[in-house]
Amino acid sequence: MIVDVKRNILIVGLGLLGGSYAEALKRYGFRVTAITRRQSSIDYALEKGIIDEGSTEVDPRLVGEADIVVFGLYPHIFTEWIEKNQRLFKSGALLTDVTGVKRSVVYKVQDMLRPDVEFIPAHPMAGREVYGVENSTSKMFVGANYIVTPTEKNTKEAIEVCRELGLLLGFSRVSVLTPEEHDEMIGFVSQLTHVIAVVLMTCNESEHIEKYTGDSFRDLTRIANINDLLWSELFFSNKDALLRQMEAFEKQFDKMKKCLCENDVEGMREMMRHSSERRAKFDKK
Amino acid sequence: MIVDVKRNILIVGLGLLGGSYAEALKRYGFRVTAITRRQSSIDYALEKGIIDEGSTEVDPRLVGEADIVVFGLYPHIFTEWIEKNQRLFKSGALLTDVTGVKRSVVYKVQDMLRPDVEFIPAHPMAGREVYGVENSTSKMFVGANYIVTPTEKNTKEAIEVCRELGLLLGFSRVSVLTPEEHDEMIGFVSQLTHVIAVVLMTCNESEHIEKYTGDSFRDLTRIANINDLLWSELFFSNKDALLRQMEAFEKQFDKMKKCLCENDVEGMREMMRHSSERRAKFDKK
Repeated sequence: MIVDVKRNILIVGLGLLGGSYAEALKRYGFRVTAITRRQSSIDYALEKGIIDEGSTEVDPRLVGEADIVVFGLYPHIFTEWIEKNQRLFKSGALLTDVTGVKRSVVYKVQDMLRPDVEFIPAHPMAGREVYGVENSTSKMFVGANYIVTPTEKNTKEAIEVCRELGLLLGFSRVSVLTPEEHDEMIGFVSQLTHVIAVVLMTCNESEHIEKYTGDSFRDLTRIANINDLLWSELFFSNKDALLRQMEAFEKQFDKMKKCLCENDVEGMREMMRHSSERRAKFDKK
Repeated sequence: MIVDVKRNILIVGLGLLGGSYAEALKRYGFRVTAITRRQSSIDYALEKGIIDEGSTEVDPRLVGEADIVVFGLYPHIFTEWIEKNQRLFKSGALLTDVTGVKRSVVYKVQDMLRPDVEFIPAHPMAGREVYGVENSTSKMFVGANYIVTPTEKNTKEAIEVCRELGLLLGFSRVSVLTPEEHDEMIGFVSQLTHVIAVVLMTCNESEHIEKYTGDSFRDLTRIANINDLLWSELFFSNKDALLRQMEAFEKQFDKMKKCLCENDVEGMREMMRHSSERRAKFDKK
């Protein structure tokens, strides 16, 4: 193991993900501290024993003691936080994050960061439709993917530490992508799916649909219960990639519609067979 | 209980749904028989004790003895079967089905049917991404919806028997809709969702997407593994309603795209809040 368990890990933003990180890391014996807005989050985490100490203020001692700092903040709050408080980091500290978009955050943070501190970005692909540390659980990392998105500014050592962190957290698969590859991919697998769920949930105003649905509708709209503040920021931070994916979806949607309009049974069946083949890859795990 | 357990129930088409019906009904003590294409399906069902007798041929005795006949066939095979074999029904027999589209099937069957036999249509809103009697289980009815779609030709008694059948099978909610209401609703909650899953699964040809996905993508594409023969028939049998629902979806998709293109944060957040509110109704159960 590269990461020394005697290290201090500070979580900034103790929400669903931050709390789940804390829980997972505490079990290895790391000293875990937290800085977060709500006192109730700290009280809960202390009571559950998933942090050793916490503060609602940016406590210079907590920041200065941390060897690894994990940021679980909204994108714009994260960059603002770094700008305002980076003077407090210990020299040699390693920063990482959980932000769902990368290009708009990674270069900004790395460009402004002190040269004796390194930011190695990551995106844990796990989440739930509930919020806050009170709902956190490291169980949600089991079977999930963790993506490290280094740039040329990152050292090999930091990339390795970040990969190991993903494994320690309990993720089933750890991958490395560039911020650009990450954002294009996330525009498809995560953002487009959330767009679809929201659109599906709002395109038919019939009452009492819940009486008549099967599992398919429930599955497709699970993520339609969405944090509008966070997700609108994620969408706009990745506007170009999301638009490309939305246009690719529209194009294929039109193709299906054309098959239906023109009674092209074979064309439709071909699309369905192609879909079934591609989907089968996801069931192997 | 209206339905006498001494009645004979014949399942025509012993697949995933037919087999699950057989299993559920056998437990109440009904005599359950089956007519289906594959001998292996009958062998399996006999071995599991979910039918008392079965045949791969249209056995006049099995048909003539049945008080209730459940059809678990593809839409066009169902109507052909009735046309060809209806002379074999016992006078007073009650027919029902599991067909996923109604207008195109119900009126055709009722119009050609002998006057001493009644067809009361139903749609069990349950399914899995696997096929055949070997995968059948009545557990899939738990928490699911069952819809009876009578016409003016149906008697009150038959409607009541059919509703009771839904409850005996273990469905959590039994509703009554006209064939027209059913098809419009199914065009939305079932067919449009399958269209979306197929389109989503085929609109991005990147390799190894499975490495990077979260639960949202897996959930939205679970039904992308689709029986192309059955579903293309269902789509074309409900073409007008499905097209209406596809167009409503496109309209709302365009609205979201416009918010993104025009940097309309508040418009996007409003859609997301509306979506979250509507989705919350589905979590009450």
